[in-house]
Amino acid sequence: MKELSKIASSVVASSTIAVDTLAKQLRAEGKDVISFGPGEPDFDTPEHISKAGMDAISRGETKYTPATGLMALRQAIAKRLELDMGVTYAPTDIVVSSGAKHNVYLTIQALVNPGDEVIVPAPYWVTYCEVVKMAGGVPVVVSAEEEQGFKITPDQLRAAITDKTKLFLINNPSNPTGMVYTEAELRALAAVCVEHDLYIMADEIYYHLVYDGEFVSVAALGDAVKERTVVVNGVSKGYAMTGWRIGYSASNPQIAKVMGNYVSHSTSGPATMSQIASIEALTADQSSVYEMKAEFLKRRDYMCERIAEMDGVSCIIPQGAFYVMMRIDALIGRTLGGKLIESGDGFAMALLEQALVAVVPCSGFGAPSFVRLSYATSMEQIAEGLDRLEVFLKE
Amino acid sequence: MKELSKIASSVVASSTIAVDTLAKQLRAEGKDVISFGPGEPDFDTPEHISKAGMDAISRGETKYTPATGLMALRQAIAKRLELDMGVTYAPTDIVVSSGAKHNVYLTIQALVNPGDEVIVPAPYWVTYCEVVKMAGGVPVVVSAEEEQGFKITPDQLRAAITDKTKLFLINNPSNPTGMVYTEAELRALAAVCVEHDLYIMADEIYYHLVYDGEFVSVAALGDAVKERTVVVNGVSKGYAMTGWRIGYSASNPQIAKVMGNYVSHSTSGPATMSQIASIEALTADQSSVYEMKAEFLKRRDYMCERIAEMDGVSCIIPQGAFYVMMRIDALIGRTLGGKLIESGDGFAMALLEQALVAVVPCSGFGAPSFVRLSYATSMEQIAEGLDRLEVFLKE
Repeated sequence: MKELSKIASSVVASSTIAVDTLAKQLRAEGKDVISFGPGEPDFDTPEHISKAGMDAISRGETKYTPATGLMALRQAIAKRLELDMGVTYAPTDIVVSSGAKHNVYLTIQALVNPGDEVIVPAPYWVTYCEVVKMAGGVPVVVSAEEEQGFKITPDQLRAAITDKTKLFLINNPSNPTGMVYTEAELRALAAVCVEHDLYIMADEIYYHLVYDGEFVSVAALGDAVKERTVVVNGVSKGYAMTGWRIGYSASNPQIAKVMGNYVSHSTSGPATMSQIASIEALTADQSSVYEMKAEFLKRRDYMCERIAEMDGVSCIIPQGAFYVMMRIDALIGRTLGGKLIESGDGFAMALLEQALVAVVPCSGFGAPSFVRLSYATSMEQIAEGLDRLEVFLKE
Repeated sequence: MKELSKIASSVVASSTIAVDTLAKQLRAEGKDVISFGPGEPDFDTPEHISKAGMDAISRGETKYTPATGLMALRQAIAKRLELDMGVTYAPTDIVVSSGAKHNVYLTIQALVNPGDEVIVPAPYWVTYCEVVKMAGGVPVVVSAEEEQGFKITPDQLRAAITDKTKLFLINNPSNPTGMVYTEAELRALAAVCVEHDLYIMADEIYYHLVYDGEFVSVAALGDAVKERTVVVNGVSKGYAMTGWRIGYSASNPQIAKVMGNYVSHSTSGPATMSQIASIEALTADQSSVYEMKAEFLKRRDYMCERIAEMDGVSCIIPQGAFYVMMRIDALIGRTLGGKLIESGDGFAMALLEQALVAVVPCSGFGAPSFVRLSYATSMEQIAEGLDRLEVFLKE
């Protein structure tokens, strides 16, 4: 038969699959695996939000919505952006979709022509490079080392710009590093984008989870920045609503219109009950957000303290999200659990096989000397998992 | 600022918008508009299905699922395809997504390279041509006239094939025409596709609603056809679950894998509670499907009888779905409601303005001499709307 789409065929499945597959297999065999893998809060969706979703179903609100989302939800999003970030958008500037990942995809589809270059700071979330290639774009990776706090500098950004550069992607707070750019750092990067007429996609899905300093949205840096910025966000991480699949973007009206037309012919609006639950999440009292954040902060501090006490691994303290980047390059060349450690991937496999602890190797994130530990799991699991790690390292 | 994506910018919003916008405006002014527009069942989602969705939320099943859907849902889909269509797929051949439209989009993205030609029979569902263009493909429209039952012939298909043809789209039963291909007709078309090594996308989302004769899936026409066919389906129309946003496709493993990788980086899996409600829909007793179908059949017969009695309009009897294509070309050049009727679009606007009846002009479906009437609304509304149409036509 004829060849399939070249672009679609070249999309690479998540690089974390090898560890994940083995973790599932070990669990299926009855092994007690502790996972530091998950990219989702372990908390249940807060009760009042779940109730809003159930009530919607019970009222029969199970019909189509407009392709870009219920107007009441777009109004609630605009209000929340104003309250939390001090930025003003019209509800019609908002496009609701089936998760923040979907808004990332729609943004790239709306902005990128084949051959356009897109600057992606590393360590990056694994989807960014794939999604740029899915639009025929070229990801240009700029590496931020641990020594620079995993944050790129304006000089690095400037050096990566060519006359083909269309867009700069920034994920703040960052998955996988947990790093948060300060307002001054963001202003300096944004100034380079304005100077070179670049669009900015600011993926701020972890903005609720900033433990040190203040979160500043890229869209809050003034009109010249805001008009060229697409803010991507959603309810998944801050409200523990991953499975409800509601993301959104905010942009200038022209981009919102293109994204709206695109979504109208590719998915239509996301699930109606999820949209109604999201209205409740965004408009109700926010105390559940702060309670979850306080718990994440305790876990972060505990995890970082324990890692600091271990030999052969280290981490800098992440200011946001729920991930720790653990450096393992001091272990390369050593034998652990009977295996020669040659990379983060090898370390992750050995740790899982020997100690039944799953971590995510960061080769897929552009950082092969690191593994990512999520603390979106209970304190008991974290303590037990780190105990096992400690024993494994002492071997 | 730099230009947006050429492809995304050229996506055309639904052509039915003018009538729809006016209908909403008239309603907002308190006018009693009767709409024959909707492409969704007016029935509530059956209670046992809604309950399964609410129970899932209440049990805390609100986390991520695999990108291609819960294994239990893919198993339920494979089972249902076997029971209803007599075709066998492995659960891993199934890709669940955020609505059948999304599976249409994913199929095209997986199969079509820029420049590939895709044959689209007209009258067509408005999204098909847009979605082909979104992949850089070229829609090649083959027109099926009312005289041929709105169904294309093998000769027409053969005549449209070039060495660039990649894919043949078939929507059976059809939106907007309600026509259903017989097994013999399907076999003849499929033979041409096998002969010319074309893929087939069979959008069978209305398969529950076939009133005359038997529904036959394209995938049931033998292995040579099945291996090159992507069947697209979902729970929206048959189970009155439009707002839950669950579609699926079934294909050979290679295509399923490409679609799965693509979806993993563009949306991830659809809403978890919707997936669980869909398992209930597909595995429970199917009597609610038959009850809704019986009601649709009554409405179809009533609507077609009424139209047959009117002057200036006519229709052939559709065998499936919930649409009637009403021919209005005898009215062109006449003045109705003070307006000269020049097209289906003009007729639809005049009917809405004068008689407060909304129908969908079929210019956007490749059939400018027709308007589409949906009977997915109550018998009372249908009777009242047709009364108004009759008065309008007698003017």
